Amino acid sequence: MRCANGIEARQVNELFINIDPIQAGGRLTADAMKAVIAYGDGYSVCDNCRKPNRLDYINKPPIAEFHRDLAAWLNMDSVRTVPGARRGFQAITNTYVRKGDPVLLTSLSHYTEFLAIEETGGIAREIPHDADHKITADATAIKIEEVMRESGRVPVLAFIDHVDYQYGNIHDVKAIAKVAHHYDIPVLYNGAYTVGILPVDGKDLGVDFVVGSGHKSMAAPAPSGVLAATKERAAEVFRTTAIEGDVTKRKFGIKEPEMMGCTLMGATLVGLMASFPLVKERVKHFDRELENNRMVLEALLSVSGTKVLSEYPRNHTLTRVDTIASFDKVAESHKKRGFYFSGALEEKGIVGVIPGATKVWKFNTYGTTSKQARHLADAFVTIATENGLSLMK
Amino acid sequence: MRCANGIEARQVNELFINIDPIQAGGRLTADAMKAVIAYGDGYSVCDNCRKPNRLDYINKPPIAEFHRDLAAWLNMDSVRTVPGARRGFQAITNTYVRKGDPVLLTSLSHYTEFLAIEETGGIAREIPHDADHKITADATAIKIEEVMRESGRVPVLAFIDHVDYQYGNIHDVKAIAKVAHHYDIPVLYNGAYTVGILPVDGKDLGVDFVVGSGHKSMAAPAPSGVLAATKERAAEVFRTTAIEGDVTKRKFGIKEPEMMGCTLMGATLVGLMASFPLVKERVKHFDRELENNRMVLEALLSVSGTKVLSEYPRNHTLTRVDTIASFDKVAESHKKRGFYFSGALEEKGIVGVIPGATKVWKFNTYGTTSKQARHLADAFVTIATENGLSLMK
Repeated sequence: MRCANGIEARQVNELFINIDPIQAGGRLTADAMKAVIAYGDGYSVCDNCRKPNRLDYINKPPIAEFHRDLAAWLNMDSVRTVPGARRGFQAITNTYVRKGDPVLLTSLSHYTEFLAIEETGGIAREIPHDADHKITADATAIKIEEVMRESGRVPVLAFIDHVDYQYGNIHDVKAIAKVAHHYDIPVLYNGAYTVGILPVDGKDLGVDFVVGSGHKSMAAPAPSGVLAATKERAAEVFRTTAIEGDVTKRKFGIKEPEMMGCTLMGATLVGLMASFPLVKERVKHFDRELENNRMVLEALLSVSGTKVLSEYPRNHTLTRVDTIASFDKVAESHKKRGFYFSGALEEKGIVGVIPGATKVWKFNTYGTTSKQARHLADAFVTIATENGLSLMK
Repeated sequence: MRCANGIEARQVNELFINIDPIQAGGRLTADAMKAVIAYGDGYSVCDNCRKPNRLDYINKPPIAEFHRDLAAWLNMDSVRTVPGARRGFQAITNTYVRKGDPVLLTSLSHYTEFLAIEETGGIAREIPHDADHKITADATAIKIEEVMRESGRVPVLAFIDHVDYQYGNIHDVKAIAKVAHHYDIPVLYNGAYTVGILPVDGKDLGVDFVVGSGHKSMAAPAPSGVLAATKERAAEVFRTTAIEGDVTKRKFGIKEPEMMGCTLMGATLVGLMASFPLVKERVKHFDRELENNRMVLEALLSVSGTKVLSEYPRNHTLTRVDTIASFDKVAESHKKRGFYFSGALEEKGIVGVIPGATKVWKFNTYGTTSKQARHLADAFVTIATENGLSLMK
């Protein structure tokens, strides 16, 4: 079935249980689906734009109210919407990082954090993870001292992922922020896997910025994201324009240069807004998500040789496993090689594991029902036994 | 009717003829509406992402093919999709503009061009328009010489809007680019009102970059846009990442820092792709659009006292008029003041004129049928005569 000339209508989330690591939290709610159709047209949210002519002041649809609610929900002072978390990173690095400045991130940081640093000419310095793949406050302090010793400079910014994309481990942002602040380093909390998934309280964490991803974790269309700041930092990152035309003497009011003027528009913004009531509710029930994850992971671990590489027991549904001594053994002699695994899953209505991957791979059970989690658990066990793998006694 | 909790379903383009200056070219096609539903979920286009793991290499949906077609259609060597034209500007200023560098734009330039310069610390220098509100090659040469004399520096970049947002006038980009290139200044063609509306041939224009807006002129959801470059400039703006993790020694393949890695995702991209066949076709029929504009503008000019401020006869459907000596006269004594005008238009099924505006205002007839244009023309004349304004003999 095609939705347009040459474009197949996507039905992945209608026809399958999808455990893709990055897609689980970004599935639209029914309200968001209706909203993207109603507000699909380009400048759809601008019908009632009035002075001071900035998108986040529009009352109909209730964009201004959404911004206030969003800031309160994150317990931060100000918030803006951005076209993806990465554009939030970019606004912050462009404000604080100059050529040659050292910037902290971690050995588990996402590539977009590196790119945001590269764009401003900063030097990326990784805080190493420990043996458990966790970033600690101690490691942060040691790294800051190392950077100071080597470069004579204090890092100008620290990116800390609350939950990293590699292991889905939870890192102690609160303790890390305390250390960073001891050196007056502003802390950017990367909540790409938490904002919209878990409760996030920016003030309690003691961070300067909270960045979240709409399309990764807030049931919104891409590209969308949020950038929240404390009052002090908002004055810096959300400063208003000061440029002027030399001939016309034009100025540009309260537009913000780091936001490139009006922020997230149209279908993406309204999708984010439409999903927000459900998103606020769903973060209160993460225990159910962990329970489903436990059910699936225990089934995987019941296959002899399977190891979990993420922290265990799990505190997040994004999970990394090592099946070199289990499912990959089958691949060695299977006529479809590693593709037998994703193929067998697909036959059971499951997608989201990289086709061909049987060594180290990730999955995310977020958003599954307990019945679907049961089906996932049974599917992994069945595929193991059908291919002659033994189960743990 | 609500599409989500607290959000009214928008029906502006279903219930009214909408002549809003910025909304006319961004209404979705039927195919785009279907596509945004099918690809509404966050990372929807990433189902079949394979090595080298960059969005513009994905074949299903046919994103890679779309990029090739788009570059060919604009007659440029490379193209990327971006979250709005402004993000294309930003990538270019971040590549070429350093603190204190003079940058050319025009006295009719859009504010987002100023913000892109401000973000990098550049100095905005406006090429003045002439008495007809046109930017000329001569004025460009004079301004370059002036900047060089005053700052001892050659401008590092020139933003030229083919059609400006204030008057909808067409400026001679080809001649201007020739002058700029005489001084080795790269030229950014701002096609926010042309790409998707008129045929655009980048090589023939002799520009270094073509930037277009999906949500303004390519029948796509917001935020979306395109950034095309010549081969030489592509190597600069689309350079690949060189940053490395100091602990992990990670590198990030062919991701591009100015693009912040993967480019436009999900519903916005697929909306742009779904509308593309119709957009390619519609640019061939701009004569019909001008004919509708002529019909409406002649009706407005038939009201004694109305003046057209845009170049006349019109070469674009975005038009600025002065009704101080016509419709504004009525507002002086009308109990609804200036709001009588937008109110009367709305009663006739017409929206898009700023409520209360009766002095200088803009409209855009793009996308109307000839029957709708006739209705618009009749509506303006009827409102004039009903309010005692006289018509030209």
